Amino acid sequence: MERVAIIGASMTKFGQREEWIQELLAEAGLDCLEDAGVEADEVEHLYVSNMASGEFEGQTGVMNGLAHDIGALPAYTQRIDQTSSSGGAGIYAAWQSVASGASEMTLLVGGEKMTHRTTGEATDVIASLTHPVEYKTGVTLPSFAGMTARHYLERFDAPRESLAKVASKNHKNGVDNPHAQFQKEVDVDTVLESPIVADPLRLYDFCPITDGSAALMLCPESVAREYTDDYVVISGIDGATDTHVVHEREDPTVMGGVVESGEGAYEMSDREPDDIDVAELHDMFTILEFLQMEGLGFAEQGEAWELVEEGYTERDTGELPVNTSGGLKSKGHPLGASGVAQGVEIYEQLMGEAGDRQVDAEVGLCCNVGGFGNCVITTIMETGQ
Amino acid sequence: MERVAIIGASMTKFGQREEWIQELLAEAGLDCLEDAGVEADEVEHLYVSNMASGEFEGQTGVMNGLAHDIGALPAYTQRIDQTSSSGGAGIYAAWQSVASGASEMTLLVGGEKMTHRTTGEATDVIASLTHPVEYKTGVTLPSFAGMTARHYLERFDAPRESLAKVASKNHKNGVDNPHAQFQKEVDVDTVLESPIVADPLRLYDFCPITDGSAALMLCPESVAREYTDDYVVISGIDGATDTHVVHEREDPTVMGGVVESGEGAYEMSDREPDDIDVAELHDMFTILEFLQMEGLGFAEQGEAWELVEEGYTERDTGELPVNTSGGLKSKGHPLGASGVAQGVEIYEQLMGEAGDRQVDAEVGLCCNVGGFGNCVITTIMETGQ
Repeated sequence: MERVAIIGASMTKFGQREEWIQELLAEAGLDCLEDAGVEADEVEHLYVSNMASGEFEGQTGVMNGLAHDIGALPAYTQRIDQTSSSGGAGIYAAWQSVASGASEMTLLVGGEKMTHRTTGEATDVIASLTHPVEYKTGVTLPSFAGMTARHYLERFDAPRESLAKVASKNHKNGVDNPHAQFQKEVDVDTVLESPIVADPLRLYDFCPITDGSAALMLCPESVAREYTDDYVVISGIDGATDTHVVHEREDPTVMGGVVESGEGAYEMSDREPDDIDVAELHDMFTILEFLQMEGLGFAEQGEAWELVEEGYTERDTGELPVNTSGGLKSKGHPLGASGVAQGVEIYEQLMGEAGDRQVDAEVGLCCNVGGFGNCVITTIMETGQ
Repeated sequence: MERVAIIGASMTKFGQREEWIQELLAEAGLDCLEDAGVEADEVEHLYVSNMASGEFEGQTGVMNGLAHDIGALPAYTQRIDQTSSSGGAGIYAAWQSVASGASEMTLLVGGEKMTHRTTGEATDVIASLTHPVEYKTGVTLPSFAGMTARHYLERFDAPRESLAKVASKNHKNGVDNPHAQFQKEVDVDTVLESPIVADPLRLYDFCPITDGSAALMLCPESVAREYTDDYVVISGIDGATDTHVVHEREDPTVMGGVVESGEGAYEMSDREPDDIDVAELHDMFTILEFLQMEGLGFAEQGEAWELVEEGYTERDTGELPVNTSGGLKSKGHPLGASGVAQGVEIYEQLMGEAGDRQVDAEVGLCCNVGGFGNCVITTIMETGQ
């Protein structure tokens, strides 16, 4: 089967934006068309990753609005929701649209507008993705993160500072990302002294609430060559669910969806963890970066924290740079956009377009986590030609 | 490329249900597993068509809840939204998942829970799919239907009764559908004397607000043969958008999305309108049945009403039975379920499992309309072997 290529990528500035969702989607969509050198009327399928425009803004049908706004009619449209991994699910849906032969040019745009709502309101919309037995008793995703972090630190004898180092590293990377919500360094002490949210995790262990949008252009490799000599291919992609009730998991430090989707993506791409040169992991909470490093085979169980301490995941000096974009932590986390933005970062790294964040990479990986690992999508990309 | 087969189908009773969305999805999902003879752990991708569980019930993540409830972990999950055509979009997404090789067994479940909300609340959620320039000035989908019906009747010199005959025919078919919301005949006079909603359309020109769920099981044809000798194949499928602002259309009686998606489905299946033996059309409003008959080439523009008057679309005596299931009109319209339920009816007709509704058919077509034709999906199915 012919490989699926990515020939363009874009993202808006992430942060507190005045525009509403429809405008944010159009901004990234138009930029991606320009980046790819594709005319709007060449787009055959137009996919929008978005979790909750209806809840956040009382506006639905945003995929049809986007087709209208960027001039892509009569492209087929669809909205993809996989909660906080909607962006990764969008990459998978776009990949399927091309790989199945249904579309020869698929534009994927992920976005969310959230900051006009209070933190409580936004947290509640997000918490509605959990099993009712959890949601109706008041559980939120930060509370799961706190419990999991406590368990991890105690069980594996990891220092609290190791979590803070994840936040500090990702903020440092984000300084060089002009699209990041926070382009500022945050040192370990600042993390450790920030207000408690879900003990032992503190404010700076959490990603912010964010508005923003990101986009990718996918097509068959043979079509890609008509547009450009340089492109990226998706060599592996897979998704998997874990128990919808978090307390039913056998081991709270093992995210089954990460393991399963990672294995699927490695098998499809004929790659293994050692082949990965750069990774974007879903650091909605600092503890998740450890769990994904372990679930994806970059570290043994309970040992990711040591790699972070040793600098293994540092951008400029580490063996495996993780979250060169700044991660969700500093870049921000507009739900439907985040998985797409992970793809944008890996695309730019593989194309040599990452500016001051550039690392030496030919194979990259993104891991997008929905809920508290309820569903996960892992994507492996490689330089084309 | 190998064809995609359907090996199982199910739907719940449509109507006013006590269960919430998660239970309705599980009911259809489990029934479909049984109908297909497939174990839950054989499901590789699990897709949920649903427009607005968040707005209607404050519950999101229903696709992950469904995987949990029916025992399909670690199947990959995704929610598909294409407003009122979410079900048809689900068929397209499920088709892509199989045709791309990503999944060898995809379960699609569409559902919506709406009747616990007032008619005004439900209508408002649905109206939020329109362009803001329309929505914020108070336009609803019924108002578009009224204006379009008035224009059609005057321009093509069609009698008001012809619209009432669509409602009457579909209600008559629905009597024999045990899953229909209303299993009762409604004669033409009753339609003509019912309360005005959007002049000239009256109450019985509109589909009801409904709870319900429907499911289909898709796999490659080679896999289908391992499970059964009798199955159905999807021979053609395509979707398309029309202008998101309805008043921008050149001709209000031509639904561009119907025309475009129909042409795509005919071309893919190497079929033409004359080959279609039975059709499920999206009769959310009676006028839509005329517009789809014309857009899909079953009638010339402005002449569908004559075919209806002549009995061409009658179930037991007509040349092309339309909405043998009872249509959205009598069966009901749980947004995310409706397109899937159209597929269930065509599957049962082609399999000879339609009971008292059975017609002689080897090729069937469904047309699922999102918004007021903002996005449309047309699917052509045929008996396998």
